[in-house]
Amino acid sequence: MPMSPAALHMHLTRNEPGIEVAVGILAQRFGERFASSRAIREQHGHTTTWLPNQAPDGVVFADSTEEVVEIVRICAQHKVPIIPFGTGSSLEGHVNAPAGGISIDVSRMNRVLKVHAEDLDCVVQPGITRKQLNEFLRDTGLFFPIDPGADASVGGMAATRASGTNAVRYGTMKDNVLALTAVMADGSVVHTGTRAKKSSAGYDLTRLLVGSEGTLGIITELTLKLHGIPEAIAGGVCPFPDVESACNAVILTIQSGIPVARMELADTLQVKACNAYSKLDLQETPTLFLEFHGTTAGVREQSELFSAIAADCGGGEFVWTDKAEDRTKLWQARHDAYWAVLGLRPGSKAVATDVCVPISRLAECVEETRRDIEATGLIAPMVGHVGDGNFHVSILVDPDNAEEKATAEAFIERLNWRAIDMEGTCTGEHGVGQGKMKYLKREHGEALSVMRAIKTALDPDNIMNPGKIVPAS
Amino acid sequence: MPMSPAALHMHLTRNEPGIEVAVGILAQRFGERFASSRAIREQHGHTTTWLPNQAPDGVVFADSTEEVVEIVRICAQHKVPIIPFGTGSSLEGHVNAPAGGISIDVSRMNRVLKVHAEDLDCVVQPGITRKQLNEFLRDTGLFFPIDPGADASVGGMAATRASGTNAVRYGTMKDNVLALTAVMADGSVVHTGTRAKKSSAGYDLTRLLVGSEGTLGIITELTLKLHGIPEAIAGGVCPFPDVESACNAVILTIQSGIPVARMELADTLQVKACNAYSKLDLQETPTLFLEFHGTTAGVREQSELFSAIAADCGGGEFVWTDKAEDRTKLWQARHDAYWAVLGLRPGSKAVATDVCVPISRLAECVEETRRDIEATGLIAPMVGHVGDGNFHVSILVDPDNAEEKATAEAFIERLNWRAIDMEGTCTGEHGVGQGKMKYLKREHGEALSVMRAIKTALDPDNIMNPGKIVPAS
Repeated sequence: MPMSPAALHMHLTRNEPGIEVAVGILAQRFGERFASSRAIREQHGHTTTWLPNQAPDGVVFADSTEEVVEIVRICAQHKVPIIPFGTGSSLEGHVNAPAGGISIDVSRMNRVLKVHAEDLDCVVQPGITRKQLNEFLRDTGLFFPIDPGADASVGGMAATRASGTNAVRYGTMKDNVLALTAVMADGSVVHTGTRAKKSSAGYDLTRLLVGSEGTLGIITELTLKLHGIPEAIAGGVCPFPDVESACNAVILTIQSGIPVARMELADTLQVKACNAYSKLDLQETPTLFLEFHGTTAGVREQSELFSAIAADCGGGEFVWTDKAEDRTKLWQARHDAYWAVLGLRPGSKAVATDVCVPISRLAECVEETRRDIEATGLIAPMVGHVGDGNFHVSILVDPDNAEEKATAEAFIERLNWRAIDMEGTCTGEHGVGQGKMKYLKREHGEALSVMRAIKTALDPDNIMNPGKIVPAS
Repeated sequence: MPMSPAALHMHLTRNEPGIEVAVGILAQRFGERFASSRAIREQHGHTTTWLPNQAPDGVVFADSTEEVVEIVRICAQHKVPIIPFGTGSSLEGHVNAPAGGISIDVSRMNRVLKVHAEDLDCVVQPGITRKQLNEFLRDTGLFFPIDPGADASVGGMAATRASGTNAVRYGTMKDNVLALTAVMADGSVVHTGTRAKKSSAGYDLTRLLVGSEGTLGIITELTLKLHGIPEAIAGGVCPFPDVESACNAVILTIQSGIPVARMELADTLQVKACNAYSKLDLQETPTLFLEFHGTTAGVREQSELFSAIAADCGGGEFVWTDKAEDRTKLWQARHDAYWAVLGLRPGSKAVATDVCVPISRLAECVEETRRDIEATGLIAPMVGHVGDGNFHVSILVDPDNAEEKATAEAFIERLNWRAIDMEGTCTGEHGVGQGKMKYLKREHGEALSVMRAIKTALDPDNIMNPGKIVPAS
């Protein structure tokens, strides 16, 4: 469902002779691990995005840091763009190739290299997905908490500074990557950070690369923090008369220091969709989904404290349980939210966008957005990682209706300006890619020049995922 | 107690004509708020460091971001170094002026600009100290948790990526700064980050500036995360037969997910010093000091869980209490550690250094260091933020004994190599300044070139706190 390319703010030109030479060298060097068929190329440009597909000229399936170095050196020599690819689940055109170039697919680099159980960390390759990693860790009593919904690769999650439902307790990728190995634009291999839990030894290159979306370097190894699987987990759902009272309960819960693990808001339309899709009978009103991690006594205490807060804020009964099977059922609606949304309008496509605001502004932002949606006539339920002030709108669009697509695009623009004007950000966890570039000047002002200076210093020929995050000028 | 200047790795030259002009302009512009007396200049070069004093040529007491811009522009025009100054409590020569220049003292910029209680954040000027901030917050039910010991300015704490005793629970400055305003080398004012709790909108300039020690920009405003004052606090001390069993208890505590707020290790010599200084009768053996934050039931449960773990690891009785006055007494020894150390050898000076290693290597690192200390004949107790793998050695040195100073310097070098070789870092929280520059190549390798490229891109004339962190070439 391509939207207008004008939205991409890209003025990149293809370096045809360079691409031709690089493709030839890579094809010879990597044999069957170099693909240039249209299907594979388009699959590597295609993501779960609303942006037009811009396929790379070739895809290399890399096996090691050394191979990534080799590919980068070849591309650097011929000034050919390089686009790293994990699972392709990014949402804002991160893996598109607006000026062509080579996609480096790291999905074969999916091994766990080390688990240091005593230090609660592990060393992994970037292509492993979060589910693969947690499957591997199952017998250690440890887990990797970041859960962006999609079964993304951890390399891609680091590159986009992903988070998800339990960031309110465990933080985002910024908080859970201890160290990185990255291949820079000149082919040099850089190790950022150590396995020490903290350091004051110089510039924080780990945090600079996390969220840089492949525009500064290609992540080829990650040292990740792990967490002990909690002794007990309790969870439940709680209805509220309106979004404001639900948000007030969230604010009080966090102020009280209740270490809530997950706290999700679904608006009325989303709850309706979930009831229909998941055959539930939730009250069709703004609803919080909660989860608590701790000791058996601890999660009971947390659940009871939240019940009292919810009641004070005008919420309904907080139905909670620490039994795994019941909890799964209660949370089912939240987990099925995406499919439930599609069920609201069969044949449509969902355009997913996210913003994040200070929690004190969340009710206002959600309500204004609700009125905006109603005025447009769009069908667009909202769910939010409300403990962080982060919420998502899924806009159901008829892919063949140009007018509707334009309406959706204009709505997304207003949503982003609204969040920025409320001291928030144009993306809490999806990243910039191509889709959010146009909002960065308003959000960052002069700081965008600093980003550009860093980009230019580290990638003077602009070959690392060009046309993403930082506009060329 | 100056050590050999050769250790500083500095090849900076003074720009005499530029300094003369800038001093003249600033003296005229700022009148009484410009100081060039020897005493004030030396006080701004002097810190609690073992390095020789290198005084700036003048000190400006700035009142606003706009004034900092003005000072930076004047210095930039004449290529004169600028050294930001908070309280001067840094330990590695961070505020020295090896090539002269202007110290910008921000201690007058110490206001709380906003408290957003609902969002658990506040906006402050950089000169406010952590104690001043917590005093201001007293009636809000919130507090700012980072406690590096010294009553440092929050600007300086951000600049050095400081942490302290409760980082194991609340994180470091990297985790508690939401956004910054900084004046860059060209005088531009940059706002990094927003008040949203998380963001994926571009390069993480907040985290790049945190820990950059004034070498990239001068912090003039900070948005800090706050935390709810816990309903209950429990704390206590627990003796162990050796460092290894104490470290094992720490590892199990963290693996169990007990959200310990503070967990400090004192070695036998430190406990002896504390007994003598604070008139206590602690068992003279490696000892853990712990603190738990939570609900009344929660801290009781945490204390009991830890007691069981300590017993399993061969520890003695964990004496704990949730009564404030008793807790204060139990923790007194830890709080008085620095003074107690000085009492071990009256007339000596304490050289404080810190390293940080993976927790699994901590016992080994501490034990090797203990043997090293014994072999040198130095008096040097150790205390550690053991939950992070971070520990400090305080070396008591006779300021007039050149041989002893050389012995101490060589010991510090071995300690740093040892930590780096154990996959750790040469500084967990003190920062690089001048003193740790020589370790960065071994710790970071090729990544140091990336740091230099960033420094050069953002400060091409090398006027921002030159001679710190990144060697000039």
